Amino acid sequence: MGKNTKPVRGMKDWLAAEMAVREKAMEIISSTYRSFGFERIDTPSVEHIELLTGGQGGDNEKLIYKIMKRGDKLNLDTENPDDLVDSGLRYDLTVPLSRFYADNHSKLPTPTKVIQMGNVWRAERPQKGRYRQFVQCDIDIIGENTINGEIDLIKASTLALENLGFGDVEFKINDRRVLYAIASFCGFEEKDYESVFITLDKLDKIGCDGIEKELTAKEFDNSAIEKIVNLTKKFLDETISVEKLNELIGNAIPEEIVNGLSTIINAAHKDNVSRASFDPTLVRGMGYYTGTIYEIKYKDYPGSVGGGGRYDKMIGRMLKNDIPAVGLSFGFERLMDIIITECRSIGESTDKIVLLFDKDSDYNEVYKKAYELRKGNVSVSVIQKAKKMGKQLNNLKEFGFTHFAVFGEDEVKPLD
Amino acid sequence: MGKNTKPVRGMKDWLAAEMAVREKAMEIISSTYRSFGFERIDTPSVEHIELLTGGQGGDNEKLIYKIMKRGDKLNLDTENPDDLVDSGLRYDLTVPLSRFYADNHSKLPTPTKVIQMGNVWRAERPQKGRYRQFVQCDIDIIGENTINGEIDLIKASTLALENLGFGDVEFKINDRRVLYAIASFCGFEEKDYESVFITLDKLDKIGCDGIEKELTAKEFDNSAIEKIVNLTKKFLDETISVEKLNELIGNAIPEEIVNGLSTIINAAHKDNVSRASFDPTLVRGMGYYTGTIYEIKYKDYPGSVGGGGRYDKMIGRMLKNDIPAVGLSFGFERLMDIIITECRSIGESTDKIVLLFDKDSDYNEVYKKAYELRKGNVSVSVIQKAKKMGKQLNNLKEFGFTHFAVFGEDEVKPLD
Repeated sequence: MGKNTKPVRGMKDWLAAEMAVREKAMEIISSTYRSFGFERIDTPSVEHIELLTGGQGGDNEKLIYKIMKRGDKLNLDTENPDDLVDSGLRYDLTVPLSRFYADNHSKLPTPTKVIQMGNVWRAERPQKGRYRQFVQCDIDIIGENTINGEIDLIKASTLALENLGFGDVEFKINDRRVLYAIASFCGFEEKDYESVFITLDKLDKIGCDGIEKELTAKEFDNSAIEKIVNLTKKFLDETISVEKLNELIGNAIPEEIVNGLSTIINAAHKDNVSRASFDPTLVRGMGYYTGTIYEIKYKDYPGSVGGGGRYDKMIGRMLKNDIPAVGLSFGFERLMDIIITECRSIGESTDKIVLLFDKDSDYNEVYKKAYELRKGNVSVSVIQKAKKMGKQLNNLKEFGFTHFAVFGEDEVKPLD
Repeated sequence: MGKNTKPVRGMKDWLAAEMAVREKAMEIISSTYRSFGFERIDTPSVEHIELLTGGQGGDNEKLIYKIMKRGDKLNLDTENPDDLVDSGLRYDLTVPLSRFYADNHSKLPTPTKVIQMGNVWRAERPQKGRYRQFVQCDIDIIGENTINGEIDLIKASTLALENLGFGDVEFKINDRRVLYAIASFCGFEEKDYESVFITLDKLDKIGCDGIEKELTAKEFDNSAIEKIVNLTKKFLDETISVEKLNELIGNAIPEEIVNGLSTIINAAHKDNVSRASFDPTLVRGMGYYTGTIYEIKYKDYPGSVGGGGRYDKMIGRMLKNDIPAVGLSFGFERLMDIIITECRSIGESTDKIVLLFDKDSDYNEVYKKAYELRKGNVSVSVIQKAKKMGKQLNNLKEFGFTHFAVFGEDEVKPLD
């Protein structure tokens, strides 16, 4: 018929088998986080365009799905497409959370511990395993200025991963203030820090040589470049503790920060489940981080399955005062990808029963029987018996039914 | 600071207390529907604008949030705003479902029984209790052409409502083909049926006099108008069975339809939970219905808490062949509104425990203790003890904490 029945570019329909895993995973994550005292909140998918383009979103701000003004507000007589737009789809859950907190803080406890699970949208170039609509799954603690915040997030997320069947995850931990100390020690000027970090963040992709080239191209001082490249090589050669690093750079990191990081790393260890290490090469792209930053790796899986950090200055942009905040986000789509790739099942498996009835059976009796069969973790579908019951049963088996019963007979039989 | 921290017009932030009810309700609905053999699927929030404006959405098509084209595709040199748009936010879950089925039908069983729960968007004039982003909660059976479809939907939704704590719901049931028979009997021409039904659909708002006026203004035949107004008055005066109605209109309704409706109505009765009745004044706005239609009323609550019907021609618009389909949708926001208004609690209540620790405690020991306390249906938050613990506890109590423990002491004490 020539109709386009595909989803829009880069987005995806989820069929029942995948959705069952996704729904169960969300339940597991949510109930684990709830047991730690986090509570779920929700904000609209649509936000004011001013909020989304306020500079907090980094490159994501270029990927916004923009929603056109309506009615009289829409005036086509313009050269600037932004004049046509008053809102957009959120590209993350952190920027909306800061608006939420600013608007509702008088009704919220200190600390406020929130769970957010919801869709976000980014018009990225489509590529395998990445979608333009995807689920983010965040926890945040607002109003907590001690490392108890970081530890709470790490303990809760570790247990959530464990409950999802993930062993052997690894926390890589660093601190923006460690990066500042390194940059300062090497001789970079404070105004250049962010530019230096943007380059360092590419280490995985371009290696030490690439870093050196890019910093040179940015025309930074040669001795500073040499120092930071040598340090980076050292970081790649051997695991280093934060204490050892601090010695190397003349104790440029305040002792409180060193001790805090040590305590966090120590707390993130859990036998057979998680390891944790200090990683001075970890940068994380978002400019809004002000303190600790961390990423979660799973086995050899490329990229991270989660990450986060402290962002003590973000909410202050909307309120009179700065409010300390720390967050951790799962790459939900990656976690689902791994669960499905590893053919792991989560949750109990369900017996899928079909109850077949004759055309002239009494519906009330048939559904009463189905009701009786629905005990425990089973599903019961009521379907009219086909003329060729054998063929019908084969077909149902193919679509995952495990048992069948015929109305009027007592037995529930396995489909095999 | 002059920043606008409100959500966009007509949309809403959900705080923890409300979200707890919403999340639990979705779990109850989903698990009930799953026990009937329905399975959850999901489609993107964004759809091709051509799909959304194909005429299936009725007035909702005027309320679409439209998303602007990107990059080279965006050409501002136009007088027509539609040229700037290539996609939009879905306004319901039925139109996307028909696209989903058309695209994936080779991978789906017959019948396909799906659950959909997700946000939809309509730029309606904001009013109390209605939001521009809201959750719809649908079940649909595709590929089922017998009344077993209708009965399955009604039985499943009745149990879901019962599990949510709703007693005393009432199903109002009619059939588009009954409306055709009435219109034909009264002497309207077939080409005018939809226009007549649009007027009849306003009965609640404008009464019989209003119906008469509007039909007269539409210049229909006077004797047809008199007949249909007299019938409508009769329907309002007394409950009528479908058999009785058929006698009145000269047996214009095929016997199979009369029998089917009787069977459905009979099956929808469940002591103390649901009543069901034939309601020949029920029209339902969407033009895509082809057979049975129904609405669910709760006590004196205005409007309906759910509804649906059979739409055997919709999927055929995308595929070569017609595929029978029948659906039922909950007004999720209305159900939540009632649960919250009636101060009803759903699910188990959780003990909220706070574990207070001293600044210099060992985090690993503190979190080990918290882990031990997390048995059963409790949440345990780990918070540093304030200097004034009494004040701190009062504050926590205000935000719903029920118990506290102090690290190093064994007892968990109620907060009172």
